Formats: sequence, structure tokens, C-alpha cells
Amino acid sequence: MIYIGIDLGGTNIAVGAVDESGKIIGEFSTKTFAQRPYQEIIRDMAFCIGKILNNLHMTEDDIASIGIGIPGVADQKTERVIFCTNLGWHDIPLGEELRKYYNKPIHIDNDATVAGYAEYVAGVSKGTDSSVFLTLGTGVGGGIVINGKPWSGFHGIGSEIGHTTIKTDGVECTCGNKGCAERYCSASAIIRMAKEALAGGAESSILERARGDIDRINAKIVIDCAKEGDAVAVRVFNEYARNLAVTINNVADTIDPEIIVLGGGVSHAGQFLLDAIQRHIPSLQLYKTLPYPRICLASLGNEAGIIGAAMLGR
Amino acid sequence: MIYIGIDLGGTNIAVGAVDESGKIIGEFSTKTFAQRPYQEIIRDMAFCIGKILNNLHMTEDDIASIGIGIPGVADQKTERVIFCTNLGWHDIPLGEELRKYYNKPIHIDNDATVAGYAEYVAGVSKGTDSSVFLTLGTGVGGGIVINGKPWSGFHGIGSEIGHTTIKTDGVECTCGNKGCAERYCSASAIIRMAKEALAGGAESSILERARGDIDRINAKIVIDCAKEGDAVAVRVFNEYARNLAVTINNVADTIDPEIIVLGGGVSHAGQFLLDAIQRHIPSLQLYKTLPYPRICLASLGNEAGIIGAAMLGR
Repeated sequence: MIYIGIDLGGTNIAVGAVDESGKIIGEFSTKTFAQRPYQEIIRDMAFCIGKILNNLHMTEDDIASIGIGIPGVADQKTERVIFCTNLGWHDIPLGEELRKYYNKPIHIDNDATVAGYAEYVAGVSKGTDSSVFLTLGTGVGGGIVINGKPWSGFHGIGSEIGHTTIKTDGVECTCGNKGCAERYCSASAIIRMAKEALAGGAESSILERARGDIDRINAKIVIDCAKEGDAVAVRVFNEYARNLAVTINNVADTIDPEIIVLGGGVSHAGQFLLDAIQRHIPSLQLYKTLPYPRICLASLGNEAGIIGAAMLGR
Repeated sequence: MIYIGIDLGGTNIAVGAVDESGKIIGEFSTKTFAQRPYQEIIRDMAFCIGKILNNLHMTEDDIASIGIGIPGVADQKTERVIFCTNLGWHDIPLGEELRKYYNKPIHIDNDATVAGYAEYVAGVSKGTDSSVFLTLGTGVGGGIVINGKPWSGFHGIGSEIGHTTIKTDGVECTCGNKGCAERYCSASAIIRMAKEALAGGAESSILERARGDIDRINAKIVIDCAKEGDAVAVRVFNEYARNLAVTINNVADTIDPEIIVLGGGVSHAGQFLLDAIQRHIPSLQLYKTLPYPRICLASLGNEAGIIGAAMLGR
């Protein structure tokens, strides 16, 4: 039997067939073209599944279940997508529509939850008792696994760690709240902080790398400059790491998982990021001498979306 | 069979025998006298158990297990108390010592976790899928129940919601961090904020109630004055409720339990408190139109410590 995993994004629909151990054995992708009617997008999911079955010389009977990771919130009981801002989806009967093509058990969950679950099944948090996954990208997503199961909360609105408040009355967030972790711990936060730091006209290689155009600054440029010791970039990155350490420490004080896994674009800063975070943890830690969750980098990269979604049905 | 529950506090050792349903059927207490050697305190726990057995005409054979709620952190595997600041305990072999008197299965957990579990077994969160309990007293404690089991984290340092940061670089906390929820959501926070508000010499009935002595101000006085419409007290209480709503919303965004239960001294403000919190939730909420955890008052009062500790062994 195979498990189908679908990573539904604003740009691509990535579909894979995954075996029992969490290994991808077949893959097919297509563009999302998010403006289309949802029926067409879901039809293309089915089309990708068919392509994979063909390539593997398998049939529908070989499929155990279909899992879908969405950049939004789903109701797992009704199999409907409640919100999916990037796609403009609102209360979409994803399960019902997909079942027109493949009548299989269907599982839908948030993409960060799914990626965290993938790391638990086949990645860096494999075999752990509990884990929390944080994606550090344009926004900040969260995925919680407790006792081997993804935990999205009772109402499905949990693990949204990017929207917990770390600075009451701080920077305004797209969600309407102020001071959300996302405003301080995302790649976008690094860009904002770098622009603020440069606004005063300070000397920095950041602007050089961005070819003199402040709007070309991205998180990678700032991190690269920080690695090379550029004073402004070091200050910005240090401030970023402090905020991320606050968010991580809040996860430790609340859930205290065995491991906290960092994924998404900023996590490519690697050991440089981990070292910076660890410098700030001691000042935040409640019980200084007790064991603390391990903080690690994600290991599966882009495959996490497919693997985690597929494994929801295992 | 009966379950023994011990609520170990800095002032009292409260011991009870609890039946399968979570009802206390016998009780005996004694003073802690925390400065004594730990062996004497634990001997007194055993003494209280003996008294209860006598009163119930029962013997040691009737005891299924013994549970202890401590104001600190325990290692459940080694049955040792790692920290217990109020008692000055540090790495105390509580299980081993108590077993000298009663050789029964022993369970030790944090007092807020235990109180939250009691509400799940026999109180307001009975029958729920998941709950988070917050004690609003001198400090702020937290207790998490997921899938019917208390969750204190992988390393036992979780559910310390009072020490999550809600204002990075805010008011200094006793734990060494700054901006902890405890500094803004405890009874002590109400007192601090009232003193700050009165420092400018503003007219208020708070000082009157405290017989002109700023050091007699307590949370109840401030809340009573707020209920009567005193301008300073209303401002302080509103600010307090906002901070508490931020902390509650962080719990919703992270764990999203079915229910969030408020206990401890400040929760005696009752509906007045719940109404004030609910006024602030909409501005913090991520998905405005989706269901949100119910926010309720604890129902068991002081008995929660005994009941929850006893039920750890059920």
C-alpha cells in the first residue's frame, strides 16, 4: 500500500506517493494557478495522483489514504477547508470534491503541522516523545506532535505559534493583533529590522549586496553580511535571534517538547542561527539547571510537506 | 479502593482519601513548618494518611496509590522533588522516603498541573478533550490536560505558563527573565499596578479601603473598587484583564484546548473578570469567526489540590 501526500501551496501542487516508512517513491507536481475555481485545482490534484499511479504501475486499490497539507485551517471532521488566505479559499469542501476522483480516507491539516509531523515520521525528530516545529519563512508557522500524533488543538486553531504575542502592543500584525511572534521571528522581520537599521544612513555591506536598492534586501543578504561581521547586520541578526529565543522559550515553558525543530528559509543559516539562539536562552530559562528541549534544524527540506501529509493516514 | 491525595503547601500539608469518582471521603491536615528537615515533613504526611485510614476504618490494603501535588518540579521517574522553592527543597527523595511508611505506587506532579487535572476529573472541565488551568494567585501557575492526561512536558518543565514572555524586556521577574506573564496576570500584578497608579497622587477609594496604607492594598480591594466604578481601579483592572487576555490568547494559539479554566485568588472576581477578559479577546484572536476555547472559572476551590493529586494514580 502507498500513502498519497499533497502539499498544496499558493504556487505549486506537489503530490507524492509515500511508503510505510515515510519514503517518497513517486512524485508529480503542477502549478496551482490559485485564481481558478477550486474544482479545477482539486481536479489537478487527482490528475497528479493518476500520473504517479501510472508511473508506479499501480492502481487506485494500492492507495491506503490521501493526506493534504494546506496553508490554512481545516475542519478534520467535515473535511472542509475553513480558511486558506493564499488561495482565497473559504469553506471549501476539499474532501468531498477529491472523493469524486478517489474514494479514499482523506486527512487535511495545516502545512506547518504536516511538516512537523514529517520530521517526526522520517526526519530529525523521529522517535521522539514530543516535538514542536517552527517554520521561519515569510511568516512563522507551528506544528506540534505529542505522543506520536499531530496536535492542532480542539477547535483546529492551535499550533499557530507565529501569532502568540511576545511584545504586547508591539508591531502591528496582518492578523489584527500587535506584537505577534511572526512580526519578530520571520524572514520578513529580518528585512524590516535591516531597513529600519539602515534608515539612519549607517554604513553597511547590506545595501551593497542589495545593489543599492533597499527593496532588494532579503533575509539571506542580512544573514550573509552578519556572518562576515558587518556591524549593522550583526546587530539586526542578534536582535532577531533574541526574539526567536523568546518564542522558543515560550514553547519550552508551555509544551516543553523533547525537541524544537526549526525549518523554513531562515533555518538555512544553520549552526550560525542555532549558536545565536543558544546565547540568549540562559537569560530566559526558568529552571537554569534542568534539561531543556533540544533545538535542531529540520532535515527533510521541501519533501516534508508531501511526507507529512501522506503520513497523516498511516 | 481509595486514592490518597496530598496537597503539599508552604503552610499546610492537606491529605485526603478520594474515591474512584473524584470525591473526597476523608481528610486530615497538619502544619508544614517548612524549615524542618524533609524527613519530618514526609513523616507527617504518613501520619495524616494513618489518621484518615483510622477514621474510615480502613487499612493500608485499601490504598490504591498515593499522589502528591508540590509547589515545584518533580522527576516522575525517580520520584524525587527537583525544586520546591517555598520549602527550600532541592533534589529530595520524596517517593523513597514516603514508601518507608506506605509501600504504594507514588505519583508526584506540580500543584497547578494537579489542580487542573482535578477540574478535569471532577470539576468544570470534566469530560473535555483538553484543558488548560491557570491559577491567578501570588504567582501564575499552569496545568495542561490533553487526551485525559496531565501534560507537564517531556522534561517536566512545561505548563509554566506564568513564565512565558508576553512583554519582551518588560518588568523583571523573580525567575531572572523580563516580561513574564506572571508579572502582569497575578494578584501581585494588580497590587503593583495599583501602587503605580496611585503614586501620582490620584484620587481613589483604593487607598481609603487600605486604611491609608499603601502596603495594605491587596487584589480584592482593587477589584472591589473597580466593581464600584472607582476610576483608578477600573483602569488598573482593565489593564490587568488585557494582559490576562493576551496570556489566554497565547494558550489558545498554541494549545487551543477545549476549555481554559481560571482558578486562584483573582478568579473570585467571577463573572466581572470573565466579562473583562472577553472584551479584549476579539482584538487578539487570529481567526475571528472560528470557535475559540471556552473560558471558565474553576469549580473545586481548595479541594482541587487533594483531588487532583489522588487522581494521578487512577
